[in-house]
Amino acid sequence: MPRPRHPMITALAGGVGAARLLRGLIEVVPPSCVTAIVNTGDDTVLHGLHISPDLDTVVYTLADAINPDTGWGLAGETWQVMASLERLGGVTWFSLGDQDLATHCYRTQRLHEGATLTAVTEELARSWGVEISIVPVTDDPLRTRLQLIDGPEIDFQEYFVKMHHDVAVADVRFEGAKHALPAPGVLDAIARAETIVVCPSNPVVSIGPLLAVPGVLEQLRLRREQIVGISPIIAGAALKGPAARLMREMGFESSVVGVAKWYASWVATLVIDESDAESAAAVEAEGVRCVVAPTVMSTVERSAALSQVVLDALG
Amino acid sequence: MPRPRHPMITALAGGVGAARLLRGLIEVVPPSCVTAIVNTGDDTVLHGLHISPDLDTVVYTLADAINPDTGWGLAGETWQVMASLERLGGVTWFSLGDQDLATHCYRTQRLHEGATLTAVTEELARSWGVEISIVPVTDDPLRTRLQLIDGPEIDFQEYFVKMHHDVAVADVRFEGAKHALPAPGVLDAIARAETIVVCPSNPVVSIGPLLAVPGVLEQLRLRREQIVGISPIIAGAALKGPAARLMREMGFESSVVGVAKWYASWVATLVIDESDAESAAAVEAEGVRCVVAPTVMSTVERSAALSQVVLDALG
Repeated sequence: MPRPRHPMITALAGGVGAARLLRGLIEVVPPSCVTAIVNTGDDTVLHGLHISPDLDTVVYTLADAINPDTGWGLAGETWQVMASLERLGGVTWFSLGDQDLATHCYRTQRLHEGATLTAVTEELARSWGVEISIVPVTDDPLRTRLQLIDGPEIDFQEYFVKMHHDVAVADVRFEGAKHALPAPGVLDAIARAETIVVCPSNPVVSIGPLLAVPGVLEQLRLRREQIVGISPIIAGAALKGPAARLMREMGFESSVVGVAKWYASWVATLVIDESDAESAAAVEAEGVRCVVAPTVMSTVERSAALSQVVLDALG
Repeated sequence: MPRPRHPMITALAGGVGAARLLRGLIEVVPPSCVTAIVNTGDDTVLHGLHISPDLDTVVYTLADAINPDTGWGLAGETWQVMASLERLGGVTWFSLGDQDLATHCYRTQRLHEGATLTAVTEELARSWGVEISIVPVTDDPLRTRLQLIDGPEIDFQEYFVKMHHDVAVADVRFEGAKHALPAPGVLDAIARAETIVVCPSNPVVSIGPLLAVPGVLEQLRLRREQIVGISPIIAGAALKGPAARLMREMGFESSVVGVAKWYASWVATLVIDESDAESAAAVEAEGVRCVVAPTVMSTVERSAALSQVVLDALG
């Protein structure tokens, strides 16, 4: 008897929150059915190395190699290079462990050789034994830039890591987006998925860059009924990072209702946390079906349970 | 009583042999009197990192941080990044230790920020507590390229490290040389030195790139009487590396006489090893004054003694 073919699932992914959801998802569906379209607006070049933080966080998490304490970087990491770089007076605000550096060396060398980011990502995922399909949203340069209210326009990592996102942002733009092409497989993965899940990632700076690549939002709108979002805002705040603050700075309220408003034109269903249950009606008033469930992914089991909620949401 | 000002000494330097001579030289003269003009034709970009092997070998050696067993790289080095890169299937034929990688990260980042190689080299030397002035021959791109007899034209590191210089070379050229400017201080250091020493480096691929930068050879010719070379060829062979083979491939004999012929137009005095004493007359027949001395620098003391021979050679 042939094994029943599992429906294809596509995830729109940022970093830590997305990685945790995907880690749970592969507990409930075969990894080969899953495609993650990952943000590259956070990518940066430091020390000449091409660093793709969200892609790496997803790969490391799915490989069970992530540092569980931080949610980024590798477990059991060593820091020889950083310690030496510090002695030399080099740039050390962006911490790069030794094993992690090997990833960036590998990626940069392959890109120099002419490989696409898509190809390199596939190679790295395979090296780490990751079986889901992980694709960058684009192979072209895409850089999230934040205009500070009292300051210059800066790169995402400078905002996020160097300034600890503790500065007021006037505007966000995605440099290069206008001329970026969706990476091979991206539009297909949206067009052909039976379920599309918007991971609980930062709507502004993790999901935003994906939507800025021409063709992606248009294709998502065509699949609206199949799209299930998970609110990264829980009880008015983000578990991690500047999602709540950035949403407010972009003129939305930092609540599940704000997320519903933000996503309503292309997301049909939103999963919100139990602690926001009383907002379900307000979410539905935005024209978005609302599902209430535990969304805090503190363990793989909770991630898997949330994944099952997403899969069940479309009935 | 004011301390007598020591005459300025300028060294033309490749990697290991030059570094050892310089390490001895600072035993016999104040480091502040010494300028080393260092080959950058060996520089390469790997993993996106700008690697300057000769500059680093000189700095590490003068800092007493060099790995004494290999003559390159750092003592007590760790290899976390390389081990991880190997697991990823990355490019690992060029070994980069963790501390050494920090140097390349630092250099690459500073170059990206717009610093010149001269400035970065000065910063690195200062970090390592090195007091002599170390200048790259040029801040512009200069790449030693080797045309193989039965194969393509390749970069120096591919020839030297990947192929263990175990291939036949038809020709050598210095890409970029024609449009390279001598780095700030280079021509001055040649014009003003009381002694210019040509370190026992590979005449073809270590000293050759220095001479290829427009203005350098012309300036050296003006100072011929002040220039003392040390033959890197001892008893027909090089202690290390492909100097002997490359000299033959370039049509010279691999002997102290071949070195004398190679250098005669701009070097007035050549120090040859005791084991070549019987060739002294043949060297002088090339119009080069010959000094015979022990030249194998197996200890700092021997390096210092050889340095003293060089200083005494001009009387």
